[in-house]
Amino acid sequence: MPTKPEILKTRTVARSRLFEVEALDLRFTNGVERTYERLAKKGWGAVMVIPLLDPDTLLLINEYAAGLNAYQLTLPKGLIDPGEDPLEAANRELMEEVGYGARRLTPLKELTTAPNYMGHSIQIIVAEDLYPKRLPGDEPEPLEVIAHPVAEIDKLVLERDFSEARVIAALLLWKQLFRREEHAR
Amino acid sequence: MPTKPEILKTRTVARSRLFEVEALDLRFTNGVERTYERLAKKGWGAVMVIPLLDPDTLLLINEYAAGLNAYQLTLPKGLIDPGEDPLEAANRELMEEVGYGARRLTPLKELTTAPNYMGHSIQIIVAEDLYPKRLPGDEPEPLEVIAHPVAEIDKLVLERDFSEARVIAALLLWKQLFRREEHAR
Repeated sequence: MPTKPEILKTRTVARSRLFEVEALDLRFTNGVERTYERLAKKGWGAVMVIPLLDPDTLLLINEYAAGLNAYQLTLPKGLIDPGEDPLEAANRELMEEVGYGARRLTPLKELTTAPNYMGHSIQIIVAEDLYPKRLPGDEPEPLEVIAHPVAEIDKLVLERDFSEARVIAALLLWKQLFRREEHAR
Repeated sequence: MPTKPEILKTRTVARSRLFEVEALDLRFTNGVERTYERLAKKGWGAVMVIPLLDPDTLLLINEYAAGLNAYQLTLPKGLIDPGEDPLEAANRELMEEVGYGARRLTPLKELTTAPNYMGHSIQIIVAEDLYPKRLPGDEPEPLEVIAHPVAEIDKLVLERDFSEARVIAALLLWKQLFRREEHAR
């Protein structure tokens, strides 16, 4: 791996309720200096849940995405609360957004979003052995929950409106591992 | 699809050289009002390139990612310039970052990054039939180019340091389609 550039100076250049933009003055090993901006990582991280009602059925939610001003079929996700571990956060989000708890929670992978200019990451957790359980969340409206056949994930990820990279990566990674386990049996 | 919330008001609450944060006052159809923040979509969009040196060999770059303060093995990518179409932008980025041009460029899919709070999207373009061609870019240092066997993509996407959701989604989507084409032959 190459030697990292030296960080000469870091400062906050913009801030809102949700976001904090940092500017970094960098000196690369060849002497070239650049100022880069990035969104700082805030809080305790985030989780995204792949809920399996049974081995053949995935649960998705239909949620308003402000960035696109559109409803999007997606996986339940949310920020980790202070003091929570990622598996607890995943189970809480599942109860709040989908109305199920999980007896089995398995970490799949930690994904970064756009590491060139964001420090954010999200942990993907597979939730199995579900039971009905509803917790009140901070959603402005109840979320529509949609059962989707696992066998049709390949088709789903190609649909034009199904576009979120983190969700597509999570589902295809899970399928790849799951397929491998099936072969091993 | 549910009816979208009404946007009561939009305003810019923070701005830097690269980022613009918008606050949206929303009224959901059940009457609940919320203020959401999002990063506005700026510019003409972005492209990410999957360069294939031959059908069995993928080209990756090793690039400094300011968001993580770490070098990351990734795909070439960049912003579309004013007046450029996505395929032209993909070919230019390929020439700048990898040192190749492509005779065949095929759009794969448009991915969104984190649509709950970002308007950003990136178009994935497959580049084939490559020829050596270098264009000067805006990189602070030359990028290390790494040839990677297509056969080992499944292993690569599970590696801890290979974490970017957009890159993993692009590679697994491409593999899925490519595999399908192979079966069809």
